[in-house]
Amino acid sequence: MNHGFSVLKTDKKSKARRGRLWTPHGYIDTPVFMPVGTQAAVKGVLPDQLVSLGSQIILSNTYHLALRPGSELIQAAGGLHAFMQWDRPILTDSGGYQVFSLQSQRTIDADGVVFKSHLDGSRHRFTPQTVVDHQVRLGSDIMMPLDICTPYGATKAQTAADMAITHRWEADAARYWHTLNTDQLLFGLVQGGMYDDLRQESVAAITQHAFSGFAIGGVSVGEPMADMHRIIETVTPQLPPDKPRYIMGIGLPENLEVAIRSGADMFDCVLPTRLARHGQVFMAGHQRVSLKQARFKLDPEPIQPGCDCYTCMRFSRGYLRHLIHARELSAATLLSIHNLRYLIRLVDTIRNQIG
Amino acid sequence: MNHGFSVLKTDKKSKARRGRLWTPHGYIDTPVFMPVGTQAAVKGVLPDQLVSLGSQIILSNTYHLALRPGSELIQAAGGLHAFMQWDRPILTDSGGYQVFSLQSQRTIDADGVVFKSHLDGSRHRFTPQTVVDHQVRLGSDIMMPLDICTPYGATKAQTAADMAITHRWEADAARYWHTLNTDQLLFGLVQGGMYDDLRQESVAAITQHAFSGFAIGGVSVGEPMADMHRIIETVTPQLPPDKPRYIMGIGLPENLEVAIRSGADMFDCVLPTRLARHGQVFMAGHQRVSLKQARFKLDPEPIQPGCDCYTCMRFSRGYLRHLIHARELSAATLLSIHNLRYLIRLVDTIRNQIG
Repeated sequence: MNHGFSVLKTDKKSKARRGRLWTPHGYIDTPVFMPVGTQAAVKGVLPDQLVSLGSQIILSNTYHLALRPGSELIQAAGGLHAFMQWDRPILTDSGGYQVFSLQSQRTIDADGVVFKSHLDGSRHRFTPQTVVDHQVRLGSDIMMPLDICTPYGATKAQTAADMAITHRWEADAARYWHTLNTDQLLFGLVQGGMYDDLRQESVAAITQHAFSGFAIGGVSVGEPMADMHRIIETVTPQLPPDKPRYIMGIGLPENLEVAIRSGADMFDCVLPTRLARHGQVFMAGHQRVSLKQARFKLDPEPIQPGCDCYTCMRFSRGYLRHLIHARELSAATLLSIHNLRYLIRLVDTIRNQIG
Repeated sequence: MNHGFSVLKTDKKSKARRGRLWTPHGYIDTPVFMPVGTQAAVKGVLPDQLVSLGSQIILSNTYHLALRPGSELIQAAGGLHAFMQWDRPILTDSGGYQVFSLQSQRTIDADGVVFKSHLDGSRHRFTPQTVVDHQVRLGSDIMMPLDICTPYGATKAQTAADMAITHRWEADAARYWHTLNTDQLLFGLVQGGMYDDLRQESVAAITQHAFSGFAIGGVSVGEPMADMHRIIETVTPQLPPDKPRYIMGIGLPENLEVAIRSGADMFDCVLPTRLARHGQVFMAGHQRVSLKQARFKLDPEPIQPGCDCYTCMRFSRGYLRHLIHARELSAATLLSIHNLRYLIRLVDTIRNQIG
């Protein structure tokens, strides 16, 4: 079986590139948008429906799965793919973001972090090694190392201090991963907040290790869009060109377009399914529109005329509006399918135009 | 196109019969279990999934749809079939049950009932004619007439008084329906509570009209199971043998078996989807079991080994238990699919054994 990453084409007008990344569960064509299944399920969308709407790969979350149902349980069930009945690639986030965004109480030491579960307050410890162990038990195709996700607005001193720990943890993760001789990929990730020189320093530190790919973390954490775009546009081209580049947590169409033009390959975001659960959908021109509005009451059109998704091929805005107001579970499913298909088709279309 | 009802086979060992009922949207083979889509959607289950699990016909509700989104809106959308994208037959309940069970405030007069909406407290009036009009606008295949559903425990005097009004309303509905010259069927329904002589009186009154079929209302309203079975077993055989017989609101396997043996043909119940939303499933031997239990944590088996439903063909009890505890929307969908398939397969199996 093939492994590794190949850049198949580079764009004439931008830094965009078309690539193929091999994983233990087959290849993905990049650029690629990854739907998020935090708790071993994409909210409201079944695996068959994900295949139908063109998902090549999904993301799940080490933090959530380690706490519930536990990575040992999932390993005993045959791994995450068998457990959730998804046989295409899975990327698992490390849990760093969750430990530092969902937790008010945590204690960082040189070797890891102790935190309280958001579910029951129980104490847990993550280290660079245990986070890899969790992901080995899950059997994800692409693993992420433990990091500190510094909040937006942190001082430069705080950001630098967090970054130094992240660099140490990632070096530990890389070393540990090499001893395991596993097929599972491990990506490195750069931090450095909104500080260009720290970002550059982070790139230099992280790219010393033989990771399978490189991610940019610490964006989409509440910063103004101009800052996000600046970080993506300046940092992405600094990452090794022969490895996949993953921008974590972005899913707005305009952000995906900026990232792809900057040479990024992979993206994930909870936005399409979260918007859907609140009755919001993507319409032509990347508008985000609430279907709850009275103007859709008698509207016989699909969400987006011409859209090839399951929902648009069948249901009218008027019916979907009714489902939302009637609090029917199917509303979340049908709107999620549209929003995911919208982003996946957007990225597919851009990919096909690269050259 | 064929119309009407044919009894194709009668059982040697019981009063059970196998039949075929033609409707404007094709025929249904009876006995048949009808999943309930109260608000123009079966909770958590899409039309394609209903087809896959073998639903021949679904039930929707005039009361709910008249209040939200309104029968005029659904008519403007091309009728209920087009609105919800279901092209097989639909039976619509009249709303009598809802007016009398969901409403604390209602005023009955000789010609109809005034009630407050459970949604916004607005005042509405249903008469035998307007309830038929709502269903004509919905375009359902089988309509039900307005009735009074007397609560369990009512005195004989109250039950008889309610029944007398119901009989008058049904006569009005039948007369009005005949003037419309519609393809849509209209069933009559008998009331009479737990009183055998009132039930007999109701059968005599209602079967005077040329309804397309006959239903037994006022069961599954909180009475002991022995009373329910007695009413079903004594009243069903009194209904005309050449018309379909519908027992309203029953869905427990043991009740379906009693009803079919008594010569009944059609059944509906919210139970399979409601149980599913609470984490409960049908297992072998008609057990109702909560999948939340710790004993299923590591269970690799499907809900019911050997079951041919979408859920059992793919997912383990352990995974489904995880989805329930993680409050994932897909839990309701997957458990509903199993519970509906369980009842539909049960009725299919009994149907195939009749002879």
